[in-house]
Amino acid sequence: MYNNFEFSVIFSCGEHRRGVVTTPHGVVETPAFIFCGTKASVKGISPHQLRETKTSIILSNTYHLFSHPGSEYIKNRGGLHKFMGWDGPMFTDSGGFQIFSLGHGSVADEIKGRRSGQSMLSSIDDNGATFKSYWDGSMQLLTPEKSIQVQQDLGADLIVAFDECTPFHSDKAYTEQSMERSHRWEKRSLDEFIRGDDGSQAMYGIIQGGVHADLRKRSAEFVSSQPFFATAIGGTLGSHKSQMMEVVEMAMNGLDKSRPIHLLGIGGISDIFNGIALGIDTFDCVHPTRIARHGGALVKAKYRDSASREHINLKRSQYKDDDSPIEPDCDCPSCRIFSRAYLHYLLKANELLALQAIAVHNIRFMNRLMSAIRFSLENQRVAEERSIWC
Amino acid sequence: MYNNFEFSVIFSCGEHRRGVVTTPHGVVETPAFIFCGTKASVKGISPHQLRETKTSIILSNTYHLFSHPGSEYIKNRGGLHKFMGWDGPMFTDSGGFQIFSLGHGSVADEIKGRRSGQSMLSSIDDNGATFKSYWDGSMQLLTPEKSIQVQQDLGADLIVAFDECTPFHSDKAYTEQSMERSHRWEKRSLDEFIRGDDGSQAMYGIIQGGVHADLRKRSAEFVSSQPFFATAIGGTLGSHKSQMMEVVEMAMNGLDKSRPIHLLGIGGISDIFNGIALGIDTFDCVHPTRIARHGGALVKAKYRDSASREHINLKRSQYKDDDSPIEPDCDCPSCRIFSRAYLHYLLKANELLALQAIAVHNIRFMNRLMSAIRFSLENQRVAEERSIWC
Repeated sequence: MYNNFEFSVIFSCGEHRRGVVTTPHGVVETPAFIFCGTKASVKGISPHQLRETKTSIILSNTYHLFSHPGSEYIKNRGGLHKFMGWDGPMFTDSGGFQIFSLGHGSVADEIKGRRSGQSMLSSIDDNGATFKSYWDGSMQLLTPEKSIQVQQDLGADLIVAFDECTPFHSDKAYTEQSMERSHRWEKRSLDEFIRGDDGSQAMYGIIQGGVHADLRKRSAEFVSSQPFFATAIGGTLGSHKSQMMEVVEMAMNGLDKSRPIHLLGIGGISDIFNGIALGIDTFDCVHPTRIARHGGALVKAKYRDSASREHINLKRSQYKDDDSPIEPDCDCPSCRIFSRAYLHYLLKANELLALQAIAVHNIRFMNRLMSAIRFSLENQRVAEERSIWC
Repeated sequence: MYNNFEFSVIFSCGEHRRGVVTTPHGVVETPAFIFCGTKASVKGISPHQLRETKTSIILSNTYHLFSHPGSEYIKNRGGLHKFMGWDGPMFTDSGGFQIFSLGHGSVADEIKGRRSGQSMLSSIDDNGATFKSYWDGSMQLLTPEKSIQVQQDLGADLIVAFDECTPFHSDKAYTEQSMERSHRWEKRSLDEFIRGDDGSQAMYGIIQGGVHADLRKRSAEFVSSQPFFATAIGGTLGSHKSQMMEVVEMAMNGLDKSRPIHLLGIGGISDIFNGIALGIDTFDCVHPTRIARHGGALVKAKYRDSASREHINLKRSQYKDDDSPIEPDCDCPSCRIFSRAYLHYLLKANELLALQAIAVHNIRFMNRLMSAIRFSLENQRVAEERSIWC
């Protein structure tokens, strides 16, 4: 298994580490950020622009593609790489996170520990989860076997075992039961994966266990005992940033560190610095492309207009006469030709180009951040680098 | 005047001709198509993508930019080239067309000879036109002097005299009065232009006269008698395609053929072939980028699905399983990686990337069309070329 995949740690210092994940579609230098192409497209951005901004890896969401256009359809089109025109490394999640997040509120609510939203989840039992399709309202059943079949149809390099993403507000008893169900589902996922394995994919196990140290440790030990290629830390990470890092630390206990470790759904700059300090290799989040659609441009500390945000909002009137680029020292295609004033104007005029231009900057920003982090690790100046970016 | 500009006809045969317009921002090989960047942006497309698709010239609309963000604002940002990051040749219209089109129906209604729409035009007299701003509803006055000042602020290479775009449904008596007013306005435009001329711009006169041969001829003679750099054919072109070409032919009579000749607002493929046969050098139209936003992809004759349209509608279910690119023989960035099936899916899923991908194809398509036309002119095989594209 995993003959076409490899993970090498090429430098480490304490928990900090720099590595390389090799896949059939190329290598990913870690720490790395994985950009979300939820519905087989990074919103508004072409694969050419992803390459131009030095993107190494993207992900798509099984839940969305399962509902529409369906994984068999994409398989018939030659798989997700061919369908969307991206020939680099690719990751798909299992669909569990979205189904259970939708069941208990929005994805953002869930990961941030807020309660709200309307339930799309109909029922859950040991077989799997039944939910209402966001696309056509039809009832759909996702089981561990089905999730893996869908991910095999899609054909991403890196795929994830199906789990129950335990809601934040669950009590410890439910969280434990749910974790044990996830473990049974992960075994079934592995069995299904092995049945269809053609050497083109490698699989992540997922650690659950909520905010409970003993459960997180047990889950980490379970996942490490199974023949997964890599590990993802899933489930709720608590209700505030400090708790998030505590929970990640709990999960790191008992983990097989020879495997790549992914932290699901986290992409804030300071969160990334906190994560790499605990040994996280990869991150993903819709944040960089989502805020672009609302005029949010990621900037280093010295360019911020507020201590509480890692981006500037180009819709603000203070940028109306600002002829400088988003970041004067950024080499992205947008910063080379567009001023903040022009982007402010485009946003006010509802011109589509604003979204593309800011997203291109944000993607390049994240890739520059990760590159700077990798460099600083080997030079043992992570703290200095952090002060530039946070 | 016009020391930094030049127009050379490098080949001609009958009325067909191939030429080069030299501007301070580069040359435009003619026949050429001018892409609309109405509000200082070609919708959803970056200047880099315009270059990549071999675009030589774009236009922006004085009416829109006058209303928002204002020409003085753009002047303070260094002019339109710098503001929008386009360093190639650029054209602005005078604002007249939009004001009068809005006064009597939509731009499309006007040029197609249909009557409808709500009036934004408040009043018109010999001084100028008063209209309601589309941006904030305020009352605005545009005079010949103001239109030229605005276009000087914007700083495009090629600018246009202010005229009254006579409505299609006007009778001959009004069309004649209106044409004479346009001639007075064009003289005032020239005076104002000369007053502020710094050598960076050259000016087009506009021919009016409706569908009346004697008026069109008089207008052509008037415009040719004035020291304009080039000539634009404006006003209504009649209610159907055959009348359009008759009207253009009327306008060509009495015209100074040593100047470049632009046909305003026309961009259909067969219309372009008809236009070059009458000696037209440049065309502009929102069509290629507008239809892209509705799933319309321009294709050569052999790829069409309907004899009545010059594009295919990728939203149609027949493209759901079509793994070929929009055009198998197209070298655009979209045709190199995206299938019709993928674009169909993106349109159905409301993914932004569809708009960019199809617009990039349509722009490249128009530039390939114009390049093929230029080549076919010198090789005297325009008819064969036409059969490929029409």
